[in-house]
Amino acid sequence: MALIVQKYGGTSVGSTDRIRNVARRVARYHREGHQLVIVVSAMSGETNRLLALAKELSADPNPRELDVVAATGEQVTIGLLAIALEAIGIKARSYTGGQVKVRTDSAFTKARIQSIDDAAMRADLGSGTVVIVAGFQGVDEDGNITTLGRGGSDTSGVALAAALKADECQIYTDVDGVYTTDPRIVPEARRLDTVTFEEMLEMASLGSKVLQIRSVEFAGKYNVRLRVLSSFEDPEATSQGTLITYEEDKHMEKATISGIAFNRDEAKISVMGVEDRPGIAYSILGPIAAANIDVDMIVQNIGASGHTDFSFTVNRSEYQKALDVLSRERTKAFKAREIIGDSRICKVSVVGIGMRSHTGIASKMFKALADEGINIQMISTSEIKISVVIDEKYLELAVRVLHQVFELDKAPSAGA
Amino acid sequence: MALIVQKYGGTSVGSTDRIRNVARRVARYHREGHQLVIVVSAMSGETNRLLALAKELSADPNPRELDVVAATGEQVTIGLLAIALEAIGIKARSYTGGQVKVRTDSAFTKARIQSIDDAAMRADLGSGTVVIVAGFQGVDEDGNITTLGRGGSDTSGVALAAALKADECQIYTDVDGVYTTDPRIVPEARRLDTVTFEEMLEMASLGSKVLQIRSVEFAGKYNVRLRVLSSFEDPEATSQGTLITYEEDKHMEKATISGIAFNRDEAKISVMGVEDRPGIAYSILGPIAAANIDVDMIVQNIGASGHTDFSFTVNRSEYQKALDVLSRERTKAFKAREIIGDSRICKVSVVGIGMRSHTGIASKMFKALADEGINIQMISTSEIKISVVIDEKYLELAVRVLHQVFELDKAPSAGA
Repeated sequence: MALIVQKYGGTSVGSTDRIRNVARRVARYHREGHQLVIVVSAMSGETNRLLALAKELSADPNPRELDVVAATGEQVTIGLLAIALEAIGIKARSYTGGQVKVRTDSAFTKARIQSIDDAAMRADLGSGTVVIVAGFQGVDEDGNITTLGRGGSDTSGVALAAALKADECQIYTDVDGVYTTDPRIVPEARRLDTVTFEEMLEMASLGSKVLQIRSVEFAGKYNVRLRVLSSFEDPEATSQGTLITYEEDKHMEKATISGIAFNRDEAKISVMGVEDRPGIAYSILGPIAAANIDVDMIVQNIGASGHTDFSFTVNRSEYQKALDVLSRERTKAFKAREIIGDSRICKVSVVGIGMRSHTGIASKMFKALADEGINIQMISTSEIKISVVIDEKYLELAVRVLHQVFELDKAPSAGA
Repeated sequence: MALIVQKYGGTSVGSTDRIRNVARRVARYHREGHQLVIVVSAMSGETNRLLALAKELSADPNPRELDVVAATGEQVTIGLLAIALEAIGIKARSYTGGQVKVRTDSAFTKARIQSIDDAAMRADLGSGTVVIVAGFQGVDEDGNITTLGRGGSDTSGVALAAALKADECQIYTDVDGVYTTDPRIVPEARRLDTVTFEEMLEMASLGSKVLQIRSVEFAGKYNVRLRVLSSFEDPEATSQGTLITYEEDKHMEKATISGIAFNRDEAKISVMGVEDRPGIAYSILGPIAAANIDVDMIVQNIGASGHTDFSFTVNRSEYQKALDVLSRERTKAFKAREIIGDSRICKVSVVGIGMRSHTGIASKMFKALADEGINIQMISTSEIKISVVIDEKYLELAVRVLHQVFELDKAPSAGA
């Protein structure tokens, strides 16, 4: 008997038929004697519908009120799933974020979880009741409803698993695991049985979209065993999906690269001709952070004659806001010759824990792109990934070429 | 400067355009210097959509979970209205039933308000902020979400007005006041400038649908000045609607009858041939009440040879449930020769505070119906109303004939 947290995303609960399917899967685990906490998203399309209503009323809706509206999506799903479970004879009880006491800070629309009160859930689990919790939402110190931002239900699931010291956190989605890249772009893409946390972190942040980045960080930090599975399989099927592991698997050594990740949602901003002095990066990025804009890649070129160029990427939806912040701060916080930007870019990355012990990955990657005539605009590297920013029109081509060059369609030989 | 509670029903907030209209009306009152608490229903159709989802999953959904689902309708509206107000420069803050602390009992889907905490609202009103509260919902002692049942938003509005000792509670709806009867049935129906609480109570309970019955009781009990207005008029128009008064207006003396009310939503149940002994009514209605079924009319005929017939009406949606309860209790709690029912009935009533000082109203009513060949199945009377149950096919005919016979199309002469 294990304590399992299962998280179902929007498409997995997109209709009453699918909710009934989720109930059947939950019933199977319940039958097997497991204690279950189910975290659900809003029915697919619902969050967008709600936000669109708000946008009809204001170009810049009050974020506190936006959260009041958006949080209803998950609240509907928890009630419906509880009803579906009771209909097949399983005791269930739903909780909103506020009811279970998912306490967050007050950063509306992108709040962070601070603590979770597990008392009520423990009592329910002890009596054989399935606990259903609204993902994506919490409540701040003053009782205001907050949301965790897009994809926040994954984070809710992992945070609940951590708070309950669950044996496993299963993330159900519309894919049956983590692939070497998006199979819609490369049909030969292969499902990975395991992937390390670090790789997953890079894959998620680079736009693999299977899991929300914060949930993976959270899982790593709190030692939560995380598994990605498909909710579209027969509820009685026992597929294993992809397990996210803490340590690199010995037999994975041979696989230098685990996957090719990409992200179309970024935009690039360059601040040209700023003074090359200590503190210049902070004077540019400080106001950006103060405006709650997340920055992804940051690149600073070597300066010449006391000046340098500074580039970074932000989410495309925050591109204009970031430009506005910079033009307001320009001359105040820093001087610049020019501020330019481009929202028609994408980021493509090769990711692999094995990269650490192998050389030549970067040059192999750059050569492959050069052979196709793809110009690289920005480069950034970490221990286990190399990312490049390129014109977005080359995205599919770059991903296909890199998947092929690194032979990702073939299973790692030591695993055979 | 006054403290005004305004309640807007589902059709008044049925689209973002209409919500914007509500915001404009609120803005006018705000400009005039009033303190405002706005209570809103779910956007029209929304509650039905949500309940239909639940019904797809279970024929008999868990009521606690049904409330979790249903309460989201109003939560969406409060957030949207707050956003609409801020968009035109007015500070606003939304509260769910749980946040404002509308404390109710735990009778899910038909909870009753026990107390309201006005501290947070007072603070907002003091700072010129418009307070927006989700109608129809509350929270029980254990933090469970509850709803007050259909039309409960009116009750929320009146209860808030009572808790805040508001100067007036304005109920905005799709009609511009209380009419002598439904103008869709009798085009000559006339809007009443004032109507007494007692009349309104009878009108509402008899199905006038303008106000929910419990809200009128509440308003009478806590001396809340209640006004019915149309939300479809120009937000800048200053119509007076119908004021519900505590005392009968002197100049109304002449108007013996204020209106003709009716209700199609009832069903009739007769328990035939029960023992004519003390306690028999309780042994029949006790189990009905225990099953949380509301009973409206009750009629017991004079018994013969130690037996009597006992009839009552319930809401049509609870007709089958009531029959089930009785067949279960039969032979246990009471013996009966036969239990019969009819759901194809309606109730038509003449209502008027002036009835108290006038005779002959009943005979005039019965004659008018007899002249049209309409058979009366049940009769019940109070100080200010006479109700009859008839075949539902005669409803429109009966209402028209009675409106004419009591000359309701003409303004009361002393008022001219």
